[in-house]
Amino acid sequence: MSLPESTLKALTEIVGSDWVLTTPEDLLCYSYDGTFHEGRPDVAVLPGSVDEVSAVLRLAHREGIPVIPRGMGSGLAAASIPFEGGIALTLTRLNRILEIDPVDMVAIVEAGVITGDLQQAVEARGLFYPPDPSSLKHCTIGGNVACNAGGPRCLKYGVTRDYVLALQAVLADGRVVRLGARTAKNATGYSLVHLFVGSEGTLGVVTEVTLRLLPLPRAVQTVLAEFPRLSDACEAVTAVLQAGVRPATLELMDETAIRCVEEYLHLGLPLDVEAILLAECDGEAAQVAEEARNVAALCREHHASQVRTAQSPKDRDDLWRARRAISGSLSRQRPNKLGEDIVVPRHAIPAMVGRLKEIGRRHDLPIVIFGHAGDGNLHPNILFDRRNPDEWARVQEASAAIFAAAVELGGTLSGEHGVGVLKREFLPLAVDPAAIEAMRAIKRALDPSGILNPGKIVS
Amino acid sequence: MSLPESTLKALTEIVGSDWVLTTPEDLLCYSYDGTFHEGRPDVAVLPGSVDEVSAVLRLAHREGIPVIPRGMGSGLAAASIPFEGGIALTLTRLNRILEIDPVDMVAIVEAGVITGDLQQAVEARGLFYPPDPSSLKHCTIGGNVACNAGGPRCLKYGVTRDYVLALQAVLADGRVVRLGARTAKNATGYSLVHLFVGSEGTLGVVTEVTLRLLPLPRAVQTVLAEFPRLSDACEAVTAVLQAGVRPATLELMDETAIRCVEEYLHLGLPLDVEAILLAECDGEAAQVAEEARNVAALCREHHASQVRTAQSPKDRDDLWRARRAISGSLSRQRPNKLGEDIVVPRHAIPAMVGRLKEIGRRHDLPIVIFGHAGDGNLHPNILFDRRNPDEWARVQEASAAIFAAAVELGGTLSGEHGVGVLKREFLPLAVDPAAIEAMRAIKRALDPSGILNPGKIVS
Repeated sequence: MSLPESTLKALTEIVGSDWVLTTPEDLLCYSYDGTFHEGRPDVAVLPGSVDEVSAVLRLAHREGIPVIPRGMGSGLAAASIPFEGGIALTLTRLNRILEIDPVDMVAIVEAGVITGDLQQAVEARGLFYPPDPSSLKHCTIGGNVACNAGGPRCLKYGVTRDYVLALQAVLADGRVVRLGARTAKNATGYSLVHLFVGSEGTLGVVTEVTLRLLPLPRAVQTVLAEFPRLSDACEAVTAVLQAGVRPATLELMDETAIRCVEEYLHLGLPLDVEAILLAECDGEAAQVAEEARNVAALCREHHASQVRTAQSPKDRDDLWRARRAISGSLSRQRPNKLGEDIVVPRHAIPAMVGRLKEIGRRHDLPIVIFGHAGDGNLHPNILFDRRNPDEWARVQEASAAIFAAAVELGGTLSGEHGVGVLKREFLPLAVDPAAIEAMRAIKRALDPSGILNPGKIVS
Repeated sequence: MSLPESTLKALTEIVGSDWVLTTPEDLLCYSYDGTFHEGRPDVAVLPGSVDEVSAVLRLAHREGIPVIPRGMGSGLAAASIPFEGGIALTLTRLNRILEIDPVDMVAIVEAGVITGDLQQAVEARGLFYPPDPSSLKHCTIGGNVACNAGGPRCLKYGVTRDYVLALQAVLADGRVVRLGARTAKNATGYSLVHLFVGSEGTLGVVTEVTLRLLPLPRAVQTVLAEFPRLSDACEAVTAVLQAGVRPATLELMDETAIRCVEEYLHLGLPLDVEAILLAECDGEAAQVAEEARNVAALCREHHASQVRTAQSPKDRDDLWRARRAISGSLSRQRPNKLGEDIVVPRHAIPAMVGRLKEIGRRHDLPIVIFGHAGDGNLHPNILFDRRNPDEWARVQEASAAIFAAAVELGGTLSGEHGVGVLKREFLPLAVDPAAIEAMRAIKRALDPSGILNPGKIVS
């Protein structure tokens, strides 16, 4: 489809001519997210206020034009790609931190605020916003809310949904709605806030978010443990959590991830171990020291060959360097990667890792495994060259096999990236048909004409 | 309405004649919850399995009979009262703890399991299920899920919704659906689990719940502080939370609550203070000791006249005795009480307490204030005699004034009791019209014939 001149003119009247983009080179910028998928919008519109968002949606609703809301396009499920054209509705101009309240311990921010900017702003006030997706330096809070973003610290602190107290959103027909309240608890009617978080822009366009904050932990200690055997690393994870220790993070890197990073950065990582665990404890100094000692001791008990502990920011940074370098190191290996996001019950982590290795061998593809072991949330990354059609076909088979294995082990398709279109066809594997039908019914109830991010999550 | 013989016969064929109750004395038992409202069902049905629940709903759906799901009837919002007759569908026979898994840290229980029984069972395994509604010795997990129950420990640990990973539910047409997964994280489609929790049996009948567990805290210390001035107690609450201390509970009793308890039990409570704060810290021994010291010091800094600390179970029990006795003590004062459940942003607690005292004076009614100060969730209890029509009229005016004040201060109608019918007419005060319309649209989408708990939350 392509939009009539009258529509473009009306959009220009709403947001101003600077914020309606139609040249091919502009539209290209709004055709991608963090995956390798692509879909060109007819127009990119950058509203500067909730009233402008509302006016754009009223217009789109009247004319039946698809609206694809987006933040910074760092999503990993192709949820913000305009596969059917329409309006790429970009929220990045709504980037004000409206309020940080240290007594109520809330922040109110517009949807386009960068997650890392919010974290810095609240930390300067002695407060803490825990969710830490790896894209935090460039992703937006609105995108985090749409996808229910996670990150390493979610082991202790929970995901984005656990921090959203209230939302302002624009519904499909342009009505502006406030959901939730600026209170710690709320049992006043259906929790539409919890439903909207993770709905990937299919039920409404989030324009403002009221977030719960915590006091900033005063002390942090990091423990890195190397395990000759992966199964021992997995057992150490369970032992730590059962001991009542709740580290903020418990990250796992498998031998392939270790090798990729070592070939990239030459950090001196051991190439003869099957796994590295990276745990970070935070809180009050005395408690953190005790927790870090416990984590280190439990790793040694579970046959870690080396355990290092870091307290200073520089030492911590050294220990984290390998984990942070994984994504970068992968692109050196092969031109493309498909990063999955499966999650399994904790007991099933060793079995899932075994399945992943078997799937890699069977489809002759390198699969790098890392992720949030404490949560059972693994990011197997398949490395490949998309220009090779045979390889691409094998990637798709391997991907389907990964989902099937996760579900068979009691898990599900996504822990923190969402469904988008990338996992939509696999939804029936993991989600009860009656639940999918209920999702469709809710989508139809809130967006009867189906203009909001069509084709995402459910078709 | 009254049900035809053929329907009663069909119900008997589904659940057996022992579990279809129709005598007036039996029906009376299913006419109440924890409020003073009453509504008689046409029949009470006690299914023994999810298949029987499903068959009852298929029948009700076919014949257009209202179905009012209930657990133990301890709700405080008249959400399980059959005002329009129909089937009181009682889940108490589904009372098996199906699984407690210490590695995945989950429990799977049927809806009719008593919350306190579950807590004992998991604690015997070194695990912990935090939500602690005051009815925990007789309320059911299914009821907790339906109402998103809270309790004192929710300050540190969150409410029921924060512990529900997955649900089995029966939809309005009798289809059985599984929602969520046995995983710590889940971003696979709309979070219907979060929507169903707190929907008060209006979207489906919850039959089985998968709950997240935590390791059992090994140490607990309790601090009780007496404040001559209520405003100092409120400031102490903020100071504690800003200091990075997260007690499991931070309970407030105002002077009226103190006086009621003292007149009832003669515990030697001070009658010259405006407030008592009761804080409980839990976790590892060293951290708990440090936290309790910090809480005590901060209370003293904020002009507490006396601060007592307890470590032994007996001493803790003594400190809690006054808080636990509040509800019992109120019935000695007046025949009836209306317990509200408003929640305000934390900064507004002193203002809200001031408003409550003013409302009590204006309507000439004693209002006892206690609740979860750390959450801003207060339970103002209006004491009255319902046989006195003038008094009852004043109670209704005072109640409306309390809601209006809470909302004016940025709060909302309910922190943990829900809406039911008790707060339904006040919903437009606190909830955006477009949000109420969205709730109605979701209700219609999932229960088109409107048989599930009709008239609750939204009409």
